Amino acid sequence: LTTRLPAVGTTVFTRMSQLATQAGAVNLGQGFPDFGCERSLLSAVNDAMQADFNQYPMMSGAPVLRQAIVAKIAALYGHQYHVDSEITVTAGATQALTTAIFCCVHPGDEVIVIEPVYDSYVPAITLAGGVPVSVEMEVGAAGYTVPWAKVAAAVTSKTRLIIINTPHNPTSTVLRAADLQALADIVRGTDVLILSDEVYEHMVYDGHQHESVSRYPELAARAFVVSSFGKTYHVTGWKIGYVAAPAALTAEFRKVHQYNVFSVNTPMQHGIASYMADPAPYLELPGFYQRKRDLFRDGLKNSRFELLPADGTYFQCVRYDKISSQTEAEFAEWLTTEIKVAAIPVSAFYQQGKESGIVRFCFAKKDETLTLALERLGKI
Amino acid sequence: LTTRLPAVGTTVFTRMSQLATQAGAVNLGQGFPDFGCERSLLSAVNDAMQADFNQYPMMSGAPVLRQAIVAKIAALYGHQYHVDSEITVTAGATQALTTAIFCCVHPGDEVIVIEPVYDSYVPAITLAGGVPVSVEMEVGAAGYTVPWAKVAAAVTSKTRLIIINTPHNPTSTVLRAADLQALADIVRGTDVLILSDEVYEHMVYDGHQHESVSRYPELAARAFVVSSFGKTYHVTGWKIGYVAAPAALTAEFRKVHQYNVFSVNTPMQHGIASYMADPAPYLELPGFYQRKRDLFRDGLKNSRFELLPADGTYFQCVRYDKISSQTEAEFAEWLTTEIKVAAIPVSAFYQQGKESGIVRFCFAKKDETLTLALERLGKI
Ligand SMILES: CSCCC(=O)C(=O)O
Ligand SMILES: CSCCC(=O)C(=O)O
Repeated sequence: LTTRLPAVGTTVFTRMSQLATQAGAVNLGQGFPDFGCERSLLSAVNDAMQADFNQYPMMSGAPVLRQAIVAKIAALYGHQYHVDSEITVTAGATQALTTAIFCCVHPGDEVIVIEPVYDSYVPAITLAGGVPVSVEMEVGAAGYTVPWAKVAAAVTSKTRLIIINTPHNPTSTVLRAADLQALADIVRGTDVLILSDEVYEHMVYDGHQHESVSRYPELAARAFVVSSFGKTYHVTGWKIGYVAAPAALTAEFRKVHQYNVFSVNTPMQHGIASYMADPAPYLELPGFYQRKRDLFRDGLKNSRFELLPADGTYFQCVRYDKISSQTEAEFAEWLTTEIKVAAIPVSAFYQQGKESGIVRFCFAKKDETLTLALERLGKI
Repeated sequence: LTTRLPAVGTTVFTRMSQLATQAGAVNLGQGFPDFGCERSLLSAVNDAMQADFNQYPMMSGAPVLRQAIVAKIAALYGHQYHVDSEITVTAGATQALTTAIFCCVHPGDEVIVIEPVYDSYVPAITLAGGVPVSVEMEVGAAGYTVPWAKVAAAVTSKTRLIIINTPHNPTSTVLRAADLQALADIVRGTDVLILSDEVYEHMVYDGHQHESVSRYPELAARAFVVSSFGKTYHVTGWKIGYVAAPAALTAEFRKVHQYNVFSVNTPMQHGIASYMADPAPYLELPGFYQRKRDLFRDGLKNSRFELLPADGTYFQCVRYDKISSQTEAEFAEWLTTEIKVAAIPVSAFYQQGKESGIVRFCFAKKDETLTLALERLGKI
């Protein structure tokens, strides 16, 4: 059996979570909360099950959930998507990303990705027969930034798609209005599409605002915008997300979607839809996570780690080069097995495994978990 | 935007369900029950949610569920799959089928499908860059049969995969031991793989037994075997299924799976695992559905429809050529809008839309629903 994905092993998240369990380490590797979600969300799902919302939903998603999504996007970003023809509920954001890539990338098409890059994009491009073209973020005192001139230079007649991710995993970079303008300048007059991974849209700190692609009509007109309820509502295992895209793109998306998963868990869709009636949970999320971020950063202030900026997401990147000259993977393993705090090597987000002396911690954890991790990290 | 799936519209199931709703028809089209599942299944899922099983499960599936699957297959079919390396939980059977196709079909590879064919296989093959090669079932007084000599003749050096489906949707055909032997004879000594869609495995009537590919070591050694909890437990909207395959095939499956959906709804997996401890629900399923099948068949005995055999699945095919000379699609629409009973044209399961004068009804309905439908159909 000749593999279709030669470069692919088990994801770094799975591997580091396994190592953390084996080592009895505090798991600040794979991104997921170690606290529960709100109980009213669980009751909402249970109510939907008890009310027999257990058969196939519409292929595009339960109308109540699509309506709630449209209302949220309109309220937050001022863009009015059409409920029937522009929103599709997916089995998590990963499925949305992969399906979006599949529906528009033809064999030989080029797709621009920005490194460090979330690990699912490149295999999905490869499987679609596309050619990933990487542009590296630059990292300086102000953290990671996207060099838009290099993105512009990477565009060719074969470029079909540019994938962006804001707030950015793993670097915590939050794109600014100027970034979105630069992107608009690049694609204007071309037929290049945009795939915007915005799963951390509600985790933006220090008064910054999330620059959703859907705020920019010129970009939204050619974009798949992806988000995730698992991240927002502390239920990463529910695997429900969505894609918002203009009708022509949505039509192509659904052609693939209906033969990939057909549709998505019905009671979860209904439960989330009713829970979304109250915007408080996502409106309060920046405050909730900013406090955890600050707790974590404060705890490392006097350590030998150098903190990079963390404007968004639930991740904190740190430089460790004053501590060790190991590769990032070796250092993350050492942290996990010896210090008993698991981290993710940022090199895993580069196709060629670039070494920057930086690892990523996830701070979506109970305060006591963070305190325990800080205690251990402080001993280094 | 050039489409990647030119031949694809909205599925016939979605279209007929919409038409049924508009027309106020009894929906015997799309296959799903109109009755609830057992309440203890719902409590099991609710318990899992309340116990905070809401974060990412393992990529391959929750171990408790994989164990339950392995035990079930061993008990029913005598094949011992390995829990860790041979079972993967999927977001429904459709995702399992599409992912299996993606992980082994390279551009230019041929895939043999048997028509009438479930509508997701061919788009998935096309999207993978493969070439679907159709062999038509033959339909006689004894119902539909697979002409294995024609399957054998269709095998070339480019054949990568043969897809079978038993019990068969839409024809209700249940493959016999002789069919599986014929298939084994065809693939012996080749490197052709098998993808076996067995989502109706627990719906086999009149004392027949389900000939799972996993009963045949020679076949199981080169097969992806797919099933679905939605069909078995009356929760088609939960979208949980699985694939069982030898470790080498599973490894390739998971490479695609982890970048397609990554993993599958956690509380549903735990709930189903604990519900599976009691085999009664699936052991009682043949009796449960055979009674409904008989109720439906008896009600049509004196009608002008000719009943085809229905050895398995929850579908009943009927010939209508003594009633009308319309195409199947026209006849199904007329049934839906005029007689107020929705059906599925079997022509939708042929790539070239072959007309056989046959439509499919789903009898997974409350007795009163079936009685109402029979009353209406009897008036024709
Ligand atoms: C899908 S598992 C990985 C979770 C995640 O997004 C991350 O840790 O970066
Ligand atoms: C996935 S919707 C179709 C349900 C079904 O399998 C059928 O009606 O044949």
